[in-house]
Amino acid sequence: MQTIEFKRKPKIIGSYSIVGPKEGQGPFGKYFDYVMQDDLFGEKTYELAERKMFEQAVTGALQSAGLKSSDINLMLAGDLLNQIISSSFTARAFNMPYLGLFGACSTMAETLATGATLIDGGYFDNVVCVTGSHFSTAERQFRFPLELGNQRVPTSQWTVTASGASVLSLEGKGPQICMATFGKVIDYGVIDMNNMGAAMAPSSADTIITHFQDTGRKPSDYDLIVTGDLGKLGGEILLDLLEEKGIKLGLKYCDCGHCYYTRRQDTMCGASGCGVSASVLNSYIVKKMKKGEYKRVLFVPTGALMSTTACQQGESIPGVSHAIVLEAGGE
Amino acid sequence: MQTIEFKRKPKIIGSYSIVGPKEGQGPFGKYFDYVMQDDLFGEKTYELAERKMFEQAVTGALQSAGLKSSDINLMLAGDLLNQIISSSFTARAFNMPYLGLFGACSTMAETLATGATLIDGGYFDNVVCVTGSHFSTAERQFRFPLELGNQRVPTSQWTVTASGASVLSLEGKGPQICMATFGKVIDYGVIDMNNMGAAMAPSSADTIITHFQDTGRKPSDYDLIVTGDLGKLGGEILLDLLEEKGIKLGLKYCDCGHCYYTRRQDTMCGASGCGVSASVLNSYIVKKMKKGEYKRVLFVPTGALMSTTACQQGESIPGVSHAIVLEAGGE
Repeated sequence: MQTIEFKRKPKIIGSYSIVGPKEGQGPFGKYFDYVMQDDLFGEKTYELAERKMFEQAVTGALQSAGLKSSDINLMLAGDLLNQIISSSFTARAFNMPYLGLFGACSTMAETLATGATLIDGGYFDNVVCVTGSHFSTAERQFRFPLELGNQRVPTSQWTVTASGASVLSLEGKGPQICMATFGKVIDYGVIDMNNMGAAMAPSSADTIITHFQDTGRKPSDYDLIVTGDLGKLGGEILLDLLEEKGIKLGLKYCDCGHCYYTRRQDTMCGASGCGVSASVLNSYIVKKMKKGEYKRVLFVPTGALMSTTACQQGESIPGVSHAIVLEAGGE
Repeated sequence: MQTIEFKRKPKIIGSYSIVGPKEGQGPFGKYFDYVMQDDLFGEKTYELAERKMFEQAVTGALQSAGLKSSDINLMLAGDLLNQIISSSFTARAFNMPYLGLFGACSTMAETLATGATLIDGGYFDNVVCVTGSHFSTAERQFRFPLELGNQRVPTSQWTVTASGASVLSLEGKGPQICMATFGKVIDYGVIDMNNMGAAMAPSSADTIITHFQDTGRKPSDYDLIVTGDLGKLGGEILLDLLEEKGIKLGLKYCDCGHCYYTRRQDTMCGASGCGVSASVLNSYIVKKMKKGEYKRVLFVPTGALMSTTACQQGESIPGVSHAIVLEAGGE
């Protein structure tokens, strides 16, 4: 069994999302809590801007939960930058005990699953989970200098400038975290650093199939089944892989990355980055669940475990995806 | 409270350590399970060698626990390489559900603390925790190409080629994990990438002081208080910082990094890297506890959250340390 159940159902009692200007113009724009006017956010470097986004996300989530920084027992955070510096420096700024996690763009699920365990098990009262990404820091670290102005291939995705944070607790109101399915590292041999959707899709399929097997549930048990940042192509590969196993997600399925930008925003296969699922969860999904429009959601952030060193040495890009079951109505 | 207590006291029922030839010649040499004949370990690249060490550590820990790969519910792993590739590729090789963690050289504590929570809370039966480091992959990623043959400064430490793995469970025999103190990110403004001991010492002091405050314990409650890889200088800074607060560790204190090589091995301030505390825990410490020579140990791996990007941008190097309480006699 890869799926665990939370008896006390920790709740997302606070949430906050912050995005860049391009992201604010996308379909989720009106749901985000804050849209930056420019990607530098008043800082000298994009790395500092990314960190400032994380800090604002944490502050906003705390305010939304009605808690102070000192009420938080632990920060669980991760990001795409080498040695997850955005997360570590954010933990430094808040002076909170810190658990650094790395699951690439699956990190929002990883922090929620681990944080929910710590709350549900009675070890801590309140934890904050945060992740995010920045187009300009990720592109130059993983691909090319921005100044090169490289042409983008049709399978590419656009790393979002966005961060999202959630405060988890047993006290307070908000969507409940009921289950978590911890995913395996799955590798179908994709070696193209500009095709993350194909690299991640097999892991999301594996986690979703396992989730249904472990729980005896089926797609119709959910109002929404949402993957992280598979994008247009990755999402189609996922549906193909599931159909081979007789599983049809139908209209309940949505990929945050595929829906993140409008078609006119010219991002090829859509959005990618830790910030995709983090910002959509902590805006659109939480808000819709609080309104009762979604009762039960399967949230499946997807990560491509890409490394420039590994790619240069001829290694393929494996994926990992974790699934979280959210239910509305936590009082 | 940053300290949590494990009611059911998960046990380290399997452990394994593997090190490079230089490490095998140090004082802990006879305690390690396997000493490699050369640092490439039969592979084409040092990155592949690092991964192979991780795999052997996991296999060895499973054998030591009398378990099969399929008995393990989750692998918790982290390492120093960008995007923790050694961990992810090891999880891929074993086809286990995977939680990637990053706490630099504090990772062994981070995996044990998180893993113990999952076992103690009743979520999983058996988990495996693994981390490690490799001199040749770390040096070239964080500092200089090996071929340059840079002269080493007196404050520098030698990244160990070593890996260690632990299997945690409620069933079986081995040292018990009784408590964990989750550390904060502490930064005293050290900017020298060749002085990791000074960068990490304040965080280890903060975690140890917090541990004593949270638990009401004192140094004499432990048979051994062991930090990860502060090295000679960092260990002295730790003792200074603790003495300022009236805490004297005395002869119970040891730093794995300081004791890892002999004086003649010319490593300046000693050893560093995730592999230091991982290999010492999973050899010397576990073996001594099983013999009853140590009854209660405070194990405090220390991490420098160093990033070349952050350093190049003028940022200082913060540290993070987590503490684990181990007790002998788990039947």
